[in-house]
Amino acid sequence: MTRTLALLLAASALPLAAAPASGQPSSAQPAYAPLFAAEITGAKRDLDASIKAGINVPVPKDPGGGFTHEQHKRNYRIIFEGGQLYRLTGDRRYLDHVRDMLLAYAELYPALGPHPAAANQVPGRLFWQSLNDSVFLVNAVQGYAEIRKALSAEDRRRIDEGVIRPMARFLSDGSPQVINRIHNHATWACAGVGLAGYLLGDRDLVDKALMGLDKSGKAGFLRQLDLLFSPDGYYAEGPYYQRYALQPFVVFAAAIEANEPQRKIFDYRDGIVLKAVRTAIDVTHSGYFIPINDAMPDKSLRTEELYHGVAIAYAATHDPTFLSIAEWQGRTVLTPAGQMLAADVAAGKARPWPFTSRLLGDGPDGKQGALVLLRESRGTNGPLLVAKNSVQGMGHGHFDRLNWLYYDETGAVVTDYGAARFLNVEAKRGGRYLPENDSWASATVAHNTLVVDEQSQFGGQWKVGETVPTRQLSAGLDAPTRWSIAEIEGAYPGVTIRRALVMLNVDGLSNPLILDILHGTGSGRHRYDLPLHFSGHIIDSDIAFDQHLAERPVLGSANGYQHLWVDGEGTRNGAARLTFMQDSRFYSYHMAPPKGARFILAESGANDPEFNLRREPALIQRVDGAAATTFVSLLEPHGRYDASSEAVVASSSRIGSLAHRREDGADIVLITFVDGQRLAVAIADDTSADASHHATVAGRSLAWTGPVGRLDLAKGDAQ
Amino acid sequence: MTRTLALLLAASALPLAAAPASGQPSSAQPAYAPLFAAEITGAKRDLDASIKAGINVPVPKDPGGGFTHEQHKRNYRIIFEGGQLYRLTGDRRYLDHVRDMLLAYAELYPALGPHPAAANQVPGRLFWQSLNDSVFLVNAVQGYAEIRKALSAEDRRRIDEGVIRPMARFLSDGSPQVINRIHNHATWACAGVGLAGYLLGDRDLVDKALMGLDKSGKAGFLRQLDLLFSPDGYYAEGPYYQRYALQPFVVFAAAIEANEPQRKIFDYRDGIVLKAVRTAIDVTHSGYFIPINDAMPDKSLRTEELYHGVAIAYAATHDPTFLSIAEWQGRTVLTPAGQMLAADVAAGKARPWPFTSRLLGDGPDGKQGALVLLRESRGTNGPLLVAKNSVQGMGHGHFDRLNWLYYDETGAVVTDYGAARFLNVEAKRGGRYLPENDSWASATVAHNTLVVDEQSQFGGQWKVGETVPTRQLSAGLDAPTRWSIAEIEGAYPGVTIRRALVMLNVDGLSNPLILDILHGTGSGRHRYDLPLHFSGHIIDSDIAFDQHLAERPVLGSANGYQHLWVDGEGTRNGAARLTFMQDSRFYSYHMAPPKGARFILAESGANDPEFNLRREPALIQRVDGAAATTFVSLLEPHGRYDASSEAVVASSSRIGSLAHRREDGADIVLITFVDGQRLAVAIADDTSADASHHATVAGRSLAWTGPVGRLDLAKGDAQ
Repeated sequence: MTRTLALLLAASALPLAAAPASGQPSSAQPAYAPLFAAEITGAKRDLDASIKAGINVPVPKDPGGGFTHEQHKRNYRIIFEGGQLYRLTGDRRYLDHVRDMLLAYAELYPALGPHPAAANQVPGRLFWQSLNDSVFLVNAVQGYAEIRKALSAEDRRRIDEGVIRPMARFLSDGSPQVINRIHNHATWACAGVGLAGYLLGDRDLVDKALMGLDKSGKAGFLRQLDLLFSPDGYYAEGPYYQRYALQPFVVFAAAIEANEPQRKIFDYRDGIVLKAVRTAIDVTHSGYFIPINDAMPDKSLRTEELYHGVAIAYAATHDPTFLSIAEWQGRTVLTPAGQMLAADVAAGKARPWPFTSRLLGDGPDGKQGALVLLRESRGTNGPLLVAKNSVQGMGHGHFDRLNWLYYDETGAVVTDYGAARFLNVEAKRGGRYLPENDSWASATVAHNTLVVDEQSQFGGQWKVGETVPTRQLSAGLDAPTRWSIAEIEGAYPGVTIRRALVMLNVDGLSNPLILDILHGTGSGRHRYDLPLHFSGHIIDSDIAFDQHLAERPVLGSANGYQHLWVDGEGTRNGAARLTFMQDSRFYSYHMAPPKGARFILAESGANDPEFNLRREPALIQRVDGAAATTFVSLLEPHGRYDASSEAVVASSSRIGSLAHRREDGADIVLITFVDGQRLAVAIADDTSADASHHATVAGRSLAWTGPVGRLDLAKGDAQ
Repeated sequence: MTRTLALLLAASALPLAAAPASGQPSSAQPAYAPLFAAEITGAKRDLDASIKAGINVPVPKDPGGGFTHEQHKRNYRIIFEGGQLYRLTGDRRYLDHVRDMLLAYAELYPALGPHPAAANQVPGRLFWQSLNDSVFLVNAVQGYAEIRKALSAEDRRRIDEGVIRPMARFLSDGSPQVINRIHNHATWACAGVGLAGYLLGDRDLVDKALMGLDKSGKAGFLRQLDLLFSPDGYYAEGPYYQRYALQPFVVFAAAIEANEPQRKIFDYRDGIVLKAVRTAIDVTHSGYFIPINDAMPDKSLRTEELYHGVAIAYAATHDPTFLSIAEWQGRTVLTPAGQMLAADVAAGKARPWPFTSRLLGDGPDGKQGALVLLRESRGTNGPLLVAKNSVQGMGHGHFDRLNWLYYDETGAVVTDYGAARFLNVEAKRGGRYLPENDSWASATVAHNTLVVDEQSQFGGQWKVGETVPTRQLSAGLDAPTRWSIAEIEGAYPGVTIRRALVMLNVDGLSNPLILDILHGTGSGRHRYDLPLHFSGHIIDSDIAFDQHLAERPVLGSANGYQHLWVDGEGTRNGAARLTFMQDSRFYSYHMAPPKGARFILAESGANDPEFNLRREPALIQRVDGAAATTFVSLLEPHGRYDASSEAVVASSSRIGSLAHRREDGADIVLITFVDGQRLAVAIADDTSADASHHATVAGRSLAWTGPVGRLDLAKGDAQ
């Protein structure tokens, strides 16, 4: 840890930082880099408006999205920004305003009881859930720290004892059911409590934040670092909450580093804090977080948490690839770390972020499953296959083990619904998770994975899911043949599910093919459904659908099936195809389904009395009355549609046939293109990396080592 | 007309232009401005690829989107670009390639009969519709002109007589049913024939192009200039076809100017050609053409036709606001006009386009109706209300007189379906208009205008519609109160429809309110339906809907009703509200409907066996068994949703009540905000500009002159 880093980090949220840490004289106006200058301009605008409007610290009343909720959110931002501006400019107007606001809170806070709009969540004092109170404290302490030394002793005492310490007490001793959990709500609480402790010189608060209320280390920040992230820095709840959790982790870590450098917090657990920042960036496409589990799909790297995360990580590493993320964000934070980052962006030091394929082990030991990212290194929006072979992800986890998603230049193609929620929109149940989040968004049928007997995995009980890992059997991360093979037992009683997803680069195709071989193996008779949720407009299909053109029924009565309108049901002898179009590209989904399979074309949105659901299409492959079944599918991106020039190329599939057979402990798939070119892919049941296999495909010998073999046959190669 | 202009214009598509018109030496590589340099780079890439691939002039076979169709399109682009590149560089490779390609066409063309894939359209020779043949000729002549003088006499003769003249003959004498029409297909034919005539020195072709096959002036280019555009430069078929038609108008006009300057073609009919270019730009929002009538909604100013249009208009006017359009386009054309435009963009001469409210009179005399654009001057994407009070618009016109649309920063909010078509996507009926274009997209119920007795206007017969104008009674184009009042008789037997749309700027609201008062007046008993087609997700409503949650019926059996799924039907005593959300904004649609009205919530997509329709929501206000009825509605944009910061403000409507009454020949509407502020709007039946009116509203006296009066009452103003 260099001295520069210590100074940079010290300036966030620490008493030390009240002295101008950046070495800038506080009265002159230094020439800031554009990114930082814009932050100052924005903060000044906010502060000027707030000063003009006057202090408004209302008695808490409204849930998320309501007036008092939003006002208290505005206020903690003002406290944060005002403190930073005072440090940067020395202008007493900012000091006075932040002080007056904090004094108003010191008047209000002590008399508050549980928030009146609290629902299922743990109530806060200022907000309907205590989580927001923690966020308030994290921000307020960082702003207050910048003005505290300049206050009169009396004002300091009133604020310390009227709001900062009582809030920290409420979020620690007063909320054991929050802070002692291993959960992102607890991380925010720990950060708030710990930052307050450092600021007030209150060792008791700091120790409780670091090691739990009983200071045993069984809870608290360090235990959260041990348990909430996998060794690869992946956060069990998924990317959306990884982002959310990140801010208290990095901000509190920076404060620990500055106050207790002997803890070497950035080296803790092999550098887990910085790994978490890197992994958060890796689990995005086009800058947007992959919306697995409960997640708002409009959430991107352009978010407060990542402005802090990127600035602190850059200060800690000087890795210039963070700068390209900051460029994409177009924002930074008002701290010295943000100032340095902005200067280096302006100096042209940015380098592209190295998006590559990754296997992110999940669970505290990294062995409870994995999130597998197979991607082309083509910037932020290249082809990306996500295999969700992870752990349950606690209460925000969906019942979607072995789910897969696909993204490319047109955005999400094979999709995840994300959460059923309108964040902070009051008319939508106060902005909370909606009933359809349980009844649809988290249900297995809302995902691209096998549904057995119309049930959700684990009977829809996440605590049961927590006890069952996913087995990542094999992964290959390199072109031209990338893969993930995983298996789960216990998602359904007596049924084992194994899935191989293979991303195939093929000469002459701009985007890879995605091959999917899914085996459901049980006994007795089951209904097996394999949905594909996709984004785009249907172009055509070779399936003879019996269509519900003038009266549309629902598919089922429970477990998400009640939310699916049925547009058509059909069958086809042999392989089938559905082609759809999104933006500038066409996609053909080829299926070599089991004998007797039916196809159901459906759309979400049934049984939705409050109009809470988006209406999105799905194709379901269904097999009835089977003990075991195998679904073989292939996604083929093709062609191009250009609205400007009206040029359309290759709107029809280039694949003539898709065939599958079992042979000697392996699945053999033969893809034949319309031009005669052929591609054989073999997946051995034995997934060990050194096992050798052999098969005969299209009259040719195919020998391979490890689970996945491949044979490319050009047009004209002998049969 | 300056000499510079003549030179600039001359260089497009004229024999003169084979000499380097720009004054650049042809061997040196001058420093081109970035916009033009990029065009050269792109064209060189195209030519290099084409030269490498070799000449490919296939026997015509496929419809739109198919291989031969796309190949012939590629070829005419290569001929155009290759000719320009030869002029700019003097590189003989380009000359040779263009020559060889034209010689191949000279071999192929004479033996061709009607295209085998011709369907309902007039067949071409190279393409399934002769329209595409005209486009081929317009482009090919412009390219050929640049190399013709450098060819051997024999090659010149073979190309002249093998393809250029025969094609011009086919498109003139050979296709009287096309070229003698007053229609955009005829304009393309005239341009092709006329350009060929100038190039070949064939006066007969030129005269037929200018004045029709019989040279009487009853048809041909000049007559098209008289009849196809209104005096305001509006094209009767609508913005999408205005764009499409523009290229032959401007290119042929430039050729006329260069060859026959004495015609003063750019002054013809008070400068109608340049007016048409300006109006084409005005009928866009965020750069995209308003998709009324048959139109692809993804069509923007980024299109070949407008690259030509903007370059030629800038060359003719030097109006620097055209340069900002070129900047948005990010493209230009390879002609000298494009070169000059690019240089001036690079020199920083661009000025913002003056988007303002406009009343575009429709019909050849401008008095057959109007397209009214009410807009805030806030750049390309500010609030815009479109009132479609125009003429029928020939075969591509929809049955949507008095329709309205609304746009703002979030895009289209009150929407038009556009055309039911997947342009050039072969699997979608060869890329042609789909059956649902008639059965849904052009039907009255697919628009935001009154439907009487579930019929489309004019019984769905466009030729009947052609005989009935719309009466634009009044318009006010200036803030804070802009309006359009229009009326139509004859759209339905015995029913007169009058509609006032008022755009109200209100202090404290970032975007205007839109007030809509629609009167349907007939005798007997009618069903009156007023749909609102909107874009966004429903947030909530105060209407008690009886919902079809688990089985969804269709609304009707014909005239578009068969394509509407019904989600719910409901009633409400007094005013009703539906709130929806699109991107970053909320919209509340308030209704003060007639007594006994019902509300139907619906979605397009029923009875759609080929998956040709998009699925979009609509709310229908319905009155049954009435002779006359009045619908009063108000669209209120409000609030803000910010996904990055998760800040949500004003997600609930700010309007507490909407009340309407009739009084002394006027409609009086009182809007009361939840904060007590009130706004009264009065619309007199007498629409003359100088008539004075008086009413008492909310205990206050309201006197006004002209049809629209307004009274703003602040909170606390006396009752």
